Amino acid sequence: MDAVTYSDPFTPEECEAVYRCIFERRDIRAQILPDRIPDDVLARILRAGHHAPSVGFMQPWDFVLVRDHGVRERIHAAFCRADEEAALMFVGERAKAYRNLKLEGILEAPLGICVTCDRSRNGPVVLGRTHQPDMDLYSAVCAVQNLWLAARAEGVGIGWVSIVARDDLRAALGIPEEIEVIAYLCAGYVSGFPTRPDLEQRRWLDRMPLRDVVHLDRWQGRELNEELARQLE
Amino acid sequence: MDAVTYSDPFTPEECEAVYRCIFERRDIRAQILPDRIPDDVLARILRAGHHAPSVGFMQPWDFVLVRDHGVRERIHAAFCRADEEAALMFVGERAKAYRNLKLEGILEAPLGICVTCDRSRNGPVVLGRTHQPDMDLYSAVCAVQNLWLAARAEGVGIGWVSIVARDDLRAALGIPEEIEVIAYLCAGYVSGFPTRPDLEQRRWLDRMPLRDVVHLDRWQGRELNEELARQLE
Repeated sequence: MDAVTYSDPFTPEECEAVYRCIFERRDIRAQILPDRIPDDVLARILRAGHHAPSVGFMQPWDFVLVRDHGVRERIHAAFCRADEEAALMFVGERAKAYRNLKLEGILEAPLGICVTCDRSRNGPVVLGRTHQPDMDLYSAVCAVQNLWLAARAEGVGIGWVSIVARDDLRAALGIPEEIEVIAYLCAGYVSGFPTRPDLEQRRWLDRMPLRDVVHLDRWQGRELNEELARQLE
Repeated sequence: MDAVTYSDPFTPEECEAVYRCIFERRDIRAQILPDRIPDDVLARILRAGHHAPSVGFMQPWDFVLVRDHGVRERIHAAFCRADEEAALMFVGERAKAYRNLKLEGILEAPLGICVTCDRSRNGPVVLGRTHQPDMDLYSAVCAVQNLWLAARAEGVGIGWVSIVARDDLRAALGIPEEIEVIAYLCAGYVSGFPTRPDLEQRRWLDRMPLRDVVHLDRWQGRELNEELARQLE
């Protein structure tokens, strides 16, 4: 039985690298370079996704790599339609600001990655999904985040394009009805990673104080001990 | 404008630390120690969650820390009810195996963390949620995964308890109707991290070959170049 390892704790340097990755990860829509991601790097990034937590160990994800330019053009056209509809939902200054944002890099990025969720995999009864039926979808989202962080460490930028109808993605990639589309990601090396999220930089919204989103023992429970409250500043 | 940083690439050691964290992260239900997580460590873990990607930068998450023993007892009772129901959904050997699994550490862990999603935050129209309405839920899931990885680097185990009705969690924590409950996590130091997922170790399911979940340009597109196919083995 190799049930438990008493592996060494992370060194301060290892810890720092993990936090660096978490804090320097960005949603990339610009500064994308055309260089192909080498196969070994891509495999490591995908393996990181594959090692996400999954409910009942069902591993419901698939990764559809998109290199074909024609396919990416169809997806880009679907984005443009959705983006036009979205722009009309904002009013005044906000609508103007929206139209000035760059929100995707579908054609610039040499690679797209569509992450899906096969809800029937290893089912029908899945351990841990019995009372929270969307746990499989959430597992696939964890795969996205793992992949995203690994990519950051490799110097590869990832942009999550959500302004696109999932049915359009399904059609462009021949994904069957019963498979859920979770995410369409653009992936490519970048000339630089922005220091702050683009929407923060442009004052679309500010980052919320961490203190404001932490509660104790009940919703709106604000009696944190002094030291924790200080550390959350 | 501090739009773009040309920060140094990650060193091989930094890269390795990130992958170590991703591959050694486990869903913890045993080996939990009662020691209190120091405030500075907890604050770093929560900050990692708070720096998750979020659709339209809406930061929809909240973190309800649960230290109170009575509250944890209510949640544990809700788990027991759900677990009993779940056990009846499996048959034969599977039912027997299910009952032998340890699936939560609600009372052993000194801290619970309930992660929620406030769908109305910074809305009603949220950039990027216009065509994929569940993007806010997925943002909150990314916060869970960020927090989980940071905890692993700190030597803190996290277990995601999904065998519990969300309405029971809402009731135990006074979470309003309009706030979605995403995850209830048990958090605590551990005597060791299992080398493999518990459900893999016990042969509940095997880990799928990475190669089987990678497609090219379309669903079931299997014409990967030889080197990538080799790297995915």
